[in-house]
Amino acid sequence: MSARENPAAAAAPVPRPPSDTARLCIHTITTRPWPLEDAVRHYAEAGVAGITVWRDALEGREPAAARRMIRDAGLTVVSLCRGGFFPGKDARSRNQAVEENQRIIEEAERLGAPLLVLVCGAVPGLPLAESRKQIREGIEAILPHAAAAGVRLAVEPLHPMYADSRSAINTLRQANDLTAAIGSPVVGVAVDVYHLWWDSDLEPEIRRCAGMRRLFAFHICDWRSPTNDLLYDRGLMGEGCIPIREIRGWMEAAGFDGFNEVEVFSTRRWSQDQGSYLTEIVQAYLSAS
Amino acid sequence: MSARENPAAAAAPVPRPPSDTARLCIHTITTRPWPLEDAVRHYAEAGVAGITVWRDALEGREPAAARRMIRDAGLTVVSLCRGGFFPGKDARSRNQAVEENQRIIEEAERLGAPLLVLVCGAVPGLPLAESRKQIREGIEAILPHAAAAGVRLAVEPLHPMYADSRSAINTLRQANDLTAAIGSPVVGVAVDVYHLWWDSDLEPEIRRCAGMRRLFAFHICDWRSPTNDLLYDRGLMGEGCIPIREIRGWMEAAGFDGFNEVEVFSTRRWSQDQGSYLTEIVQAYLSAS
Repeated sequence: MSARENPAAAAAPVPRPPSDTARLCIHTITTRPWPLEDAVRHYAEAGVAGITVWRDALEGREPAAARRMIRDAGLTVVSLCRGGFFPGKDARSRNQAVEENQRIIEEAERLGAPLLVLVCGAVPGLPLAESRKQIREGIEAILPHAAAAGVRLAVEPLHPMYADSRSAINTLRQANDLTAAIGSPVVGVAVDVYHLWWDSDLEPEIRRCAGMRRLFAFHICDWRSPTNDLLYDRGLMGEGCIPIREIRGWMEAAGFDGFNEVEVFSTRRWSQDQGSYLTEIVQAYLSAS
Repeated sequence: MSARENPAAAAAPVPRPPSDTARLCIHTITTRPWPLEDAVRHYAEAGVAGITVWRDALEGREPAAARRMIRDAGLTVVSLCRGGFFPGKDARSRNQAVEENQRIIEEAERLGAPLLVLVCGAVPGLPLAESRKQIREGIEAILPHAAAAGVRLAVEPLHPMYADSRSAINTLRQANDLTAAIGSPVVGVAVDVYHLWWDSDLEPEIRRCAGMRRLFAFHICDWRSPTNDLLYDRGLMGEGCIPIREIRGWMEAAGFDGFNEVEVFSTRRWSQDQGSYLTEIVQAYLSAS
């Protein structure tokens, strides 16, 4: 059944582990206890090349100053996380979401982030088809703003276990359909192995996304067995069952040459010493991704 | 986007709530604190028409005696839950799974259950494509046994959040592909709204399944927001965001006229008085499913 589901899988060889950290990016949320300044310093010391900044890490800081600090440390800003959450039960809340996303785009521009990741949103009880329509309308409403700011937008399909309240876009196929319908080079997709690893259409949809030139970002972590929390029990690469390296092979065979972004939400990891955790992250990256 | 995704949705009207309990079935796991004898007596008193028996409820009982008790109470045995878990890392464990499923089929036959529900299985680290191949081989191995016993088999696609360790069959499309490949009238599908509600292909795949005459069972419950546990925090109909009635409409429009089976795993509900809970179940069934 493997070959039929996935005709290119046999052809694309699973790549070797990364030989260095030149494409390693870490999301600030991964080391949440660290203030942005500590994260930047420690990432740079560990040889990490890129940083994706979560908005909570910017709180109380001027984005342009954060931009200089990150540049001075020798790191590249890969993206800002996150905008989105477009659906709402009334026009007022949907308009507020558009305005909030316009502010976030300005923040991304000042931070020097070339990409804003979108968690598209869902509202319990709102039909998913209606949420998807509102998501498209929301993205189209902020599109001129993003284009003018030079900030691209990445739709991140979320795992179906978040379809109730976080995103009505739950497969790469849906994200590809959405970006194809919008039809702008500004709007592409972020592939996160945690959300998509289970999908037997993942490899052909990665190729389709790349064929549309919409493959904008690649997030990695692992799925622990058992997983004890729907949100905050992600694993470090190698701690779970996701075929990370195989999926990275599909990305690279499709032409993706961007960063491999480590994005781990884990109360367990946040409670440990973040310095030794960072060492483990780099080791896991080099051995299991 | 709704109409394009789902061309028949607009045409199939959402049905009225059930007017009576003639098609109401309850899974014994829903009222887990009750021994089988109590469940049967209380279900019958509440006007419940069918019962799906979980194997833990049979422990220490002779299935044929349970069959008589259920029949004498006026209830119909809808199915036995559950067989499956076919994949394994070596041939020995896969053979053991086949033998175990043969014993479960005999149990279903003695219980008078016309249907055995299959949670197909997955093993952390085993590639999903390999698990799917092993699932097909496992079902084909027990098929003659099931046919001889007069017990049909229902593949239950499980939510993608169970793809690590419970089932590599995670969408109705995959279940339909699997049953189509097996090609036996003995092997069909159980549709559970909890596992499948998020899938934008659900309605056309229900029609496809019905067209193959493989629509064997329908399980209902609800998805709570937030959901606090991956396994044991299901909601009663109306407590969550699943469009249960719309999905029932799709089932009925496709020709399904079997039981509506209430299957709720909830530590919260198991800790309350099961008699008043049963009253709530019947009310929720009549008002929100």
